[in-house]
Amino acid sequence: MTASNTIRHLISISDLTTPEFKSLVNRAAYHKKLIKSKQKPATLPLQGELAALLFTKRSTRTRISSEGAAAYFGAQPMFLGKEDIQLGVNESFYDTTKVISSMTSCIFARVNSHADIQQLCEHSSVPIINSLCDRYHPLQAICDLLTITENFNELKGLKLAWIGDSNNVINDLAIAAMKFGINVSIATPNGIEMEQFIIDEARKITNETGATLELTHDPKIAATDANILVTDTFVSMGEESQTKEKLKQFSGFQINNELTSLAKDDYKFMHCLPRHKEEVSDDVFYSDHSVVFPEAENRLYAAIATLEAFVINKGQFL
Amino acid sequence: MTASNTIRHLISISDLTTPEFKSLVNRAAYHKKLIKSKQKPATLPLQGELAALLFTKRSTRTRISSEGAAAYFGAQPMFLGKEDIQLGVNESFYDTTKVISSMTSCIFARVNSHADIQQLCEHSSVPIINSLCDRYHPLQAICDLLTITENFNELKGLKLAWIGDSNNVINDLAIAAMKFGINVSIATPNGIEMEQFIIDEARKITNETGATLELTHDPKIAATDANILVTDTFVSMGEESQTKEKLKQFSGFQINNELTSLAKDDYKFMHCLPRHKEEVSDDVFYSDHSVVFPEAENRLYAAIATLEAFVINKGQFL
Amino acid sequence: MTASNTIRHLISISDLTTPEFKSLVNRAAYHKKLIKSKQKPATLPLQGELAALLFTKRSTRTRISSEGAAAYFGAQPMFLGKEDIQLGVNESFYDTTKVISSMTSCIFARVNSHADIQQLCEHSSVPIINSLCDRYHPLQAICDLLTITENFNELKGLKLAWIGDSNNVINDLAIAAMKFGINVSIATPNGIEMEQFIIDEARKITNETGATLELTHDPKIAATDANILVTDTFVSMGEESQTKEKLKQFSGFQINNELTSLAKDDYKFMHCLPRHKEEVSDDVFYSDHSVVFPEAENRLYAAIATLEAFVINKGQFL
Repeated sequence: MTASNTIRHLISISDLTTPEFKSLVNRAAYHKKLIKSKQKPATLPLQGELAALLFTKRSTRTRISSEGAAAYFGAQPMFLGKEDIQLGVNESFYDTTKVISSMTSCIFARVNSHADIQQLCEHSSVPIINSLCDRYHPLQAICDLLTITENFNELKGLKLAWIGDSNNVINDLAIAAMKFGINVSIATPNGIEMEQFIIDEARKITNETGATLELTHDPKIAATDANILVTDTFVSMGEESQTKEKLKQFSGFQINNELTSLAKDDYKFMHCLPRHKEEVSDDVFYSDHSVVFPEAENRLYAAIATLEAFVINKGQFL
Repeated sequence: MTASNTIRHLISISDLTTPEFKSLVNRAAYHKKLIKSKQKPATLPLQGELAALLFTKRSTRTRISSEGAAAYFGAQPMFLGKEDIQLGVNESFYDTTKVISSMTSCIFARVNSHADIQQLCEHSSVPIINSLCDRYHPLQAICDLLTITENFNELKGLKLAWIGDSNNVINDLAIAAMKFGINVSIATPNGIEMEQFIIDEARKITNETGATLELTHDPKIAATDANILVTDTFVSMGEESQTKEKLKQFSGFQINNELTSLAKDDYKFMHCLPRHKEEVSDDVFYSDHSVVFPEAENRLYAAIATLEAFVINKGQFL
Repeated sequence: MTASNTIRHLISISDLTTPEFKSLVNRAAYHKKLIKSKQKPATLPLQGELAALLFTKRSTRTRISSEGAAAYFGAQPMFLGKEDIQLGVNESFYDTTKVISSMTSCIFARVNSHADIQQLCEHSSVPIINSLCDRYHPLQAICDLLTITENFNELKGLKLAWIGDSNNVINDLAIAAMKFGINVSIATPNGIEMEQFIIDEARKITNETGATLELTHDPKIAATDANILVTDTFVSMGEESQTKEKLKQFSGFQINNELTSLAKDDYKFMHCLPRHKEEVSDDVFYSDHSVVFPEAENRLYAAIATLEAFVINKGQFL
């Protein structure tokens, strides 16, 4: 029960100081460079240990990047899908968490509700890495800021435009970008608003870095003069029955040549994938402006930096 | 076909001499100490080899501890669930066993029937580790004796009370405890009796260590003056349709404050998990008397000691 | 997009020169000898890297041998079954391939259609190992030629008889055997013919090695004076509804004592498994002539040689 007081978990970018978050992005870049130059780490600090992947939802990129990061440091990834384990079914959530954490070095948790992440963090004796919940997606945000640093020399003063849903991805991305001094403009459809806790958090960061947060329902306002255009799926996993209705609501939100013509000439397009055509046209998605595949690959380095900081270095940042 | 003559498998605690079993428990304690002091094994004797997990039933603790033990010695665990392989379907049991064992270093087998374990042992060219069948659960017994040695200075003469079903867990635990000189008292509901082969085996061990086996249908008789209270699920996997009937049969068998008041003041409570409330009250389960979570963690060290003895040292005990 | 120009994938034995293919078989034998003498590789060239197993169909031998080969060189195998990933569903085939290959060192692909293998090869930035498609099964052919070299001193001039279906296994095996100078005689039922592209390829190899290809619908013609008898399932995965009809078509094709009496006295029987009784009688399958279990084990060494040549040595053959 006292575990939660002494262990640092990765729940959201909001929980990190700006220097801590920047350190994660820097270390991700460092390990990427190492791997690209075919160097191996001198030691395998997690050799012989288990890294649990507790995934109640399917997630290709998250799974591969987590397993790859574990392997990089010598740990054995252990994938537990919804067929393997059902949290809170046949055993209390508390009991399961106590047991799994007693035999592993960390838990990558890809769950449905943020409450599940909170319960895991409360009861676990090892670091929990939030690998996607309905509120946050910190690994994607680390990866996205790494991608942005690779594509722009000076981040302060850039404009990042999110044109899409109010969801876990933009929650952490907005905070992450603003920590780097990037101004964020978010266009969501009428009737869909950003959550108040993100707006509150953003206000604090404005005071710290000067970066601004703009909220609008007009994609054109967001796209205008943007350096970076970002979107995500309009229909989240589990909402497939509402597809038709959702797509109507997102009419005009496809990122296509009409919208990108408003952005800076050298804009970059990002997407956490998987991608569907309603969100972004082929013209844009497969253009030279698109950095979606390097961005996906960067998930690996984000997971590596996270393992290093939270598991190997136990919440101490280099 | 001659494989079965030369390879030592772990089928049941009954197959081990008392010194062999004590060696396993000692080695489990040794490796636990090593791991807790953050030491790594000097070599990885199973580096580059596969440890197969052949699991026809789901089993969280068994899976994690087996994968963890494999990783500890450098082996690659390979989980094969009922979706991955179906013994005896589309290929004979013999053929499948021959093939899997020819490409792996050991097989952790979590099957339904003891006959399946026997078939695997007969045909396999590598050690079979019985990781739960309907008759035995030796890895749990190793873990439980490790847990008991951690909680009591002198084991000889202790009283262990099992209040629950007649099943695989108590079959091996009774033999295991008696090998250490612990007197065992088993209370099962009317109409549920311990199996004759366990009673016969127990008689042999009484001659060797002096430990006694008491069988009763009264939980109070078992609990009285007990140092260790143990139970397990009343409704086994696959019996869920009989839940209502079963629970009626086990009326009065819940380990709660009324029953524990009969036990020694410093009694310990054990349970192999997952636990349900009908078996043990929250008062007891989450009390200071309960050692269920260290017990669960000890599954890892039991699996490590087993891999060492049966796979690395090929049936030679340290 | 340029990846396909520079990366060598293993698609079919047809794509390999005869020296390249012989090198693979030699290296498989070399690693087998190393493993059998309990030697470990001096280095782990794939340490810390992921080897993806993209399996849209279940496949015990292919899975175990691939995971074992990955582990042998230090890589972490990552099994992605049809529950984990669905190619072309919810994301384009192109996108998925780009992403997976960006975070892994190779992809063992066990898919349905050869077109899927081609798409993977076109888009992947890492080597694709065709681990069974509806047209080819190169890993089985490497393993089979290793098995034949272990059982015969001189391969040139041997007669290999395939008595069964026209399928992926014989497609690659025919080419593989002929590259070693083995004459191939294929008996398929009336109405089932070998594919033209294999016949064309075989003609080229006849010019190179002198080995002949004979096509017949009479099992007796194939079996007569054969040194090696081979068959495979008559009813492939997914065709189970046609079982009755298929078995009628294959009447007289069971390899039993009647057929083997026509073969050389010291003939060997091979089968890629899983085996069903309609294909081969117990008399033959479990006789001293049968090398099916060493053959299955050789799948491991075939996968090891393939990883070495295509992934570690990037298409350079030792």
